[in-house]
Amino acid sequence: MRLAFSGLLLILLASPLQADEGMWTFDNFPARSVQQEYGVRIDQAWLDQVRLATVRLENGCTGSFASDNGLILTNRHCTFSCLSEHTDADHNVWRDGLVARHPGEEKRCSSQQVSVLMTTTDITKQVADAIAELDPPEIEETATVTISESENVETGEAVVEQDEAESVQTVQEASDAAINEARNKILTRLEQACEAEAKGKISCEAVALYHGGQYFLYQYKRYSDVRLVFAPEVGIGAFGGDPDNFNFPRWCLDAAFLRVYDDDGQPAKTPDYLRWRAAGAQAGEPVFVPGHPGSTERQLTTAQLELLRNVSLPDWLMRNAELRGRYKQFSTVDEQAFDEVQEPLTRIENGLKVRKNELAALLDDRLMDQKRQREATLRAAVTADPVLAAEVGDPWSQIDQAIVEYLPFRKQYLYIGAGVGFGGKMFAYARTLVRGAAERAKPNEERLREYRGTALPRIEQSLFASAPVHPRLEQIQLAFSLGKMREELGPDDPNVQKILGNHTPEQLARSLVEGSGLADPALRRKLWEGGTVAVAKSDDPMIRLARAMDPEARALRKRYEEVYEGPIKAAAENLARARFAIDGTSTYPDATFTLRLSYGAVKGWNELGHEVDPFTYLGRLYARNTGQPPFDVPKSWMQRKRDLDMKTRFNFVATIDATGGNSGSPVINKDAQLVGLLFDGNAYSIAGAYWYDPALNRAISVHPAIILEALEKVYDADYVLGELSEAAGR
Amino acid sequence: MRLAFSGLLLILLASPLQADEGMWTFDNFPARSVQQEYGVRIDQAWLDQVRLATVRLENGCTGSFASDNGLILTNRHCTFSCLSEHTDADHNVWRDGLVARHPGEEKRCSSQQVSVLMTTTDITKQVADAIAELDPPEIEETATVTISESENVETGEAVVEQDEAESVQTVQEASDAAINEARNKILTRLEQACEAEAKGKISCEAVALYHGGQYFLYQYKRYSDVRLVFAPEVGIGAFGGDPDNFNFPRWCLDAAFLRVYDDDGQPAKTPDYLRWRAAGAQAGEPVFVPGHPGSTERQLTTAQLELLRNVSLPDWLMRNAELRGRYKQFSTVDEQAFDEVQEPLTRIENGLKVRKNELAALLDDRLMDQKRQREATLRAAVTADPVLAAEVGDPWSQIDQAIVEYLPFRKQYLYIGAGVGFGGKMFAYARTLVRGAAERAKPNEERLREYRGTALPRIEQSLFASAPVHPRLEQIQLAFSLGKMREELGPDDPNVQKILGNHTPEQLARSLVEGSGLADPALRRKLWEGGTVAVAKSDDPMIRLARAMDPEARALRKRYEEVYEGPIKAAAENLARARFAIDGTSTYPDATFTLRLSYGAVKGWNELGHEVDPFTYLGRLYARNTGQPPFDVPKSWMQRKRDLDMKTRFNFVATIDATGGNSGSPVINKDAQLVGLLFDGNAYSIAGAYWYDPALNRAISVHPAIILEALEKVYDADYVLGELSEAAGR
Repeated sequence: MRLAFSGLLLILLASPLQADEGMWTFDNFPARSVQQEYGVRIDQAWLDQVRLATVRLENGCTGSFASDNGLILTNRHCTFSCLSEHTDADHNVWRDGLVARHPGEEKRCSSQQVSVLMTTTDITKQVADAIAELDPPEIEETATVTISESENVETGEAVVEQDEAESVQTVQEASDAAINEARNKILTRLEQACEAEAKGKISCEAVALYHGGQYFLYQYKRYSDVRLVFAPEVGIGAFGGDPDNFNFPRWCLDAAFLRVYDDDGQPAKTPDYLRWRAAGAQAGEPVFVPGHPGSTERQLTTAQLELLRNVSLPDWLMRNAELRGRYKQFSTVDEQAFDEVQEPLTRIENGLKVRKNELAALLDDRLMDQKRQREATLRAAVTADPVLAAEVGDPWSQIDQAIVEYLPFRKQYLYIGAGVGFGGKMFAYARTLVRGAAERAKPNEERLREYRGTALPRIEQSLFASAPVHPRLEQIQLAFSLGKMREELGPDDPNVQKILGNHTPEQLARSLVEGSGLADPALRRKLWEGGTVAVAKSDDPMIRLARAMDPEARALRKRYEEVYEGPIKAAAENLARARFAIDGTSTYPDATFTLRLSYGAVKGWNELGHEVDPFTYLGRLYARNTGQPPFDVPKSWMQRKRDLDMKTRFNFVATIDATGGNSGSPVINKDAQLVGLLFDGNAYSIAGAYWYDPALNRAISVHPAIILEALEKVYDADYVLGELSEAAGR
Repeated sequence: MRLAFSGLLLILLASPLQADEGMWTFDNFPARSVQQEYGVRIDQAWLDQVRLATVRLENGCTGSFASDNGLILTNRHCTFSCLSEHTDADHNVWRDGLVARHPGEEKRCSSQQVSVLMTTTDITKQVADAIAELDPPEIEETATVTISESENVETGEAVVEQDEAESVQTVQEASDAAINEARNKILTRLEQACEAEAKGKISCEAVALYHGGQYFLYQYKRYSDVRLVFAPEVGIGAFGGDPDNFNFPRWCLDAAFLRVYDDDGQPAKTPDYLRWRAAGAQAGEPVFVPGHPGSTERQLTTAQLELLRNVSLPDWLMRNAELRGRYKQFSTVDEQAFDEVQEPLTRIENGLKVRKNELAALLDDRLMDQKRQREATLRAAVTADPVLAAEVGDPWSQIDQAIVEYLPFRKQYLYIGAGVGFGGKMFAYARTLVRGAAERAKPNEERLREYRGTALPRIEQSLFASAPVHPRLEQIQLAFSLGKMREELGPDDPNVQKILGNHTPEQLARSLVEGSGLADPALRRKLWEGGTVAVAKSDDPMIRLARAMDPEARALRKRYEEVYEGPIKAAAENLARARFAIDGTSTYPDATFTLRLSYGAVKGWNELGHEVDPFTYLGRLYARNTGQPPFDVPKSWMQRKRDLDMKTRFNFVATIDATGGNSGSPVINKDAQLVGLLFDGNAYSIAGAYWYDPALNRAISVHPAIILEALEKVYDADYVLGELSEAAGR
């Protein structure tokens, strides 16, 4: 892969960013650069309309309103949990898709939520004032929550609680701790005040940009009644499966429609929707992508990149490659096993491709050399400015030190503290119930931050959802993770001995899964509502295990926050302050699963000397059909082949700076018309975690022409199609 | 892990090696250093006796004669193929072990061969003369064969043909190619002349030491009738299983007895055996280990280390971690599956631990920085000596260039050329039959070197052996490797399309395995003996596939040899020449699965501040018993517990520089008495691939006291025990 200049050096040299680089906030979009490069004028009305037409799927995706009646376009792969929820012995929605013919056939997605960003308020000054008023020192434990489509590389097995905690805080020095606590308190207070004022219609979230260079309060309108309207078969929605994932040329109809409903059970009114342009965009035409990129790590220090390269990524890859092998072998046992395993298998295979390419990027010495060089330049710039140096200190050494302190107990933290040793949904439910009971008994401001009042509705929705729990799969996940814990911590480790006793991982997993009732949402609800008393009295074996391990898990988390995460965050803020002092907002902040706007053009790339065409066409889909998964064109498409126009554009690529979380984003033209549906990137896009390379990094999208062609001629989906036509006509 | 000085810098600085470092040849043992450090005098008689008492197991291990009647002590894990061979639905020798009570109960190990090194002859001058006579240029394709216990990191799935080819040669420049060919011809000629003279009793092998600094002809007495006399249950032979592998403290009776027979069916006469010292050696006592370390890579350039770190090792680890997951899941299906998978699973888990720790060593920037520094020092020394510089050229740049040329077709070579895309025994048989027929039709000197006349007996033994072939396992291995090939080469790759057609990897694997008769040794013999005609006429689907892919596989191998392996070997020889010019034989050559002698002392190490005792004792074995694999003490040991002395020493560690291939080596004292049986190293020993660290690197051995205690009180093994007593008494 060729090397691109990343943001940092360019800031320091006051050079422009790479063409098309950046995931920009809506209040700081580089309209002038876009006008210069593409001759397109983006004004505030355009930005407002696009913002209101773009939605966040709280499981880590993006979507766009496609009608004024709450219809949402997103990716099929963003509806995985809903497809699984409605897949049972009789109906395989995962495999066969869903074509609702009328509202009554829409399927409720019980763990899905949808948000629209209504306003953003700069609260940087309030935060600074609260910190200025401080009397040091004071320490307390808090945490914040981050959600992203891509799982945490350290802890991220399949995410069940969407509120996978990324705890942050409590610091090595009292002053850092007090500052952090004061900051968290003012943020929580502003959030609460905001929600109180909005009386439940609005969800308020504090957002740190530029690693703390700016703070904002984001107000979202949130929809909790979300229903599936249309999803195609897996055979076309994920044609090519894992072999084709992150590759292009490509032929995936990775599209689905959802609909949001108001509390009165009526479709939500959504006047700010996107008109579709069936012809799409032409090669070279400028395009724009609003969406919620999950996270990028373009500002990590070299020590942090080395930790990822040497420890976190190889560990994650080896662990999950092995789990993939288990899933694949299990899928051969019977048809039901095959069906059950599709969701976690797809998730893990996607993760493996991502991490593998991330590791490859970090193993390229040129990248590391460049990062080292830029780090040296920034350190020199800070040293040359005594005032700035006094303000920010030596964050690089603080990070080095935090890593040194973390590594000796990293595996303990990972397996026991972060729960990687306890795979599967059932233990995750148990931990949430045990912890949730204890935390809810405390005043709001003293809780672990993922159990604060404003976060509870989402926990409850996920806990009470009737998402299926497959006992055989649970046993595999739990036995695998217990075995891996024994392998990594050693059979003589006290925690391992406490957990396993004389059992093998397989025996323990079986007895826990067979003995537990937590697959039943009713029991989960009862335990949640029963609080500390109910949890203390429960003799459910999964609850007993979570209860027994909770003190140790909390102690490890506390130590992790104190010696690692807190200092890292404090140092990262100082680093960001240094950069911000030099550069202000002339660049973009790292992705944080908040609304951003990227821009670029429809364009292929040069792959080892040959030019990749930016478009694919329907005809070649049939040429690649082998009749066997994952290259089996579904029966519906075979039957209607004669009716279809083989020259219909299918997928296309563009020079859009995007990442996980942008899945489901609309691709729009200068007139804010929908000209594509982003669903993936090429293999080079994965290095985008660390830098943007305009020569090779490409986002992959579904063309609107193939969606419309399929809805009309393959699926006879008059219900959706009529709505789209009507919307286009307004 | 702490850093140690490796050989290279010490050579350049003319400093002594690390204490106890080195795998020395018998003709260059550093007796003076040993006398200085340990006060022990090693003379020629001692060396001769030890050499004749030490055997090479041709599957990649070492053993020692334990009586004058052909009895051999080695590790249980060195008898895997024999244990598998005698495991069927009725008798699970793998799990239950074998205690022969008389000669008739011994079990033939049909794919095992045993060799004793009789003489070595320095042929460096003959090789140099043959090259000096050359008229350049001339090019031809040849190859040599290497065998080692540890599999090749690039190609090494389960090794079926023990002659896994490590082809070497044909070079970027005509003169290199001609030199290489002349060298190979003189080596083959000297081997042939040697064997002709010995009339079939002796096997002659040319050996390159110091990467070509010296050439030797090694003459081995070879035994092909090898029988299993004793092996304990897997529960005690591998107590602790994978979790304990490469760990210490440890409690493994990883011991087994074999016996070699002469052609007349009588036990071989082996007067040069080792007497046992039941009391073993005391802490601090000097000990010696003769054996056949397989390979070390202490002289690789930084570019080669980076290739391993960035590409080969991560690839191998991810691929095999996934295959491990498949095996583990398959093992849960039924008892038979569990039994079938034990051998390949154990092999792969061992490999994963090794590679994982090798990767960790290479990801330690301190190691790479040190290697870089030493490389710079050596380059400077060469530059400073114009005569030497003219002779050796710039081997570092040659290696860099070879890697650059290799990488673009590496995956093609690996999956198609080296056959990683075709897992399982059956395809390996097919490839050997197809290639063997074609090669045997050529004059000896024109064949691929692994099919030269002197190599055929071993191929035939392995091909005609009745080792079991498990169809379900074959399908898993083949489907997995085909799927991985599609993943890595891409579904649109012409070779992938030619192989898979419209089939899934699973479908193709099933039809090949179900349709092929190659599980039957009689058919393999028939095809082998039928030669090109029989192979060409065969419509066995596995033969058909091997036949169809052979031209492409050969072409890839040729390209690999021409642009990569040949130039690498030529450069490595020039590097070795540079080192040899400066240092001569005052250091030891990299391991080559030829006879070596290491030395050190019985000694623990300091593990994160706490001293590890060098011995373990029987009592704690029972304390660690969970009753469940892999921590289940076998029933035999539970029943006899009361009779056993709980203070019996079990395993111990010593500062011995050893590696894979040393498994089964005797540990002996200054009087050449057996005081231990080497079977493993601690986790730090794995970094020994690249350097020796006297502070942490430890070899792990079985104590003779526990072997004798077990034979007498657990197994009532009077047959073996009587023979040992008698041998001790002589």
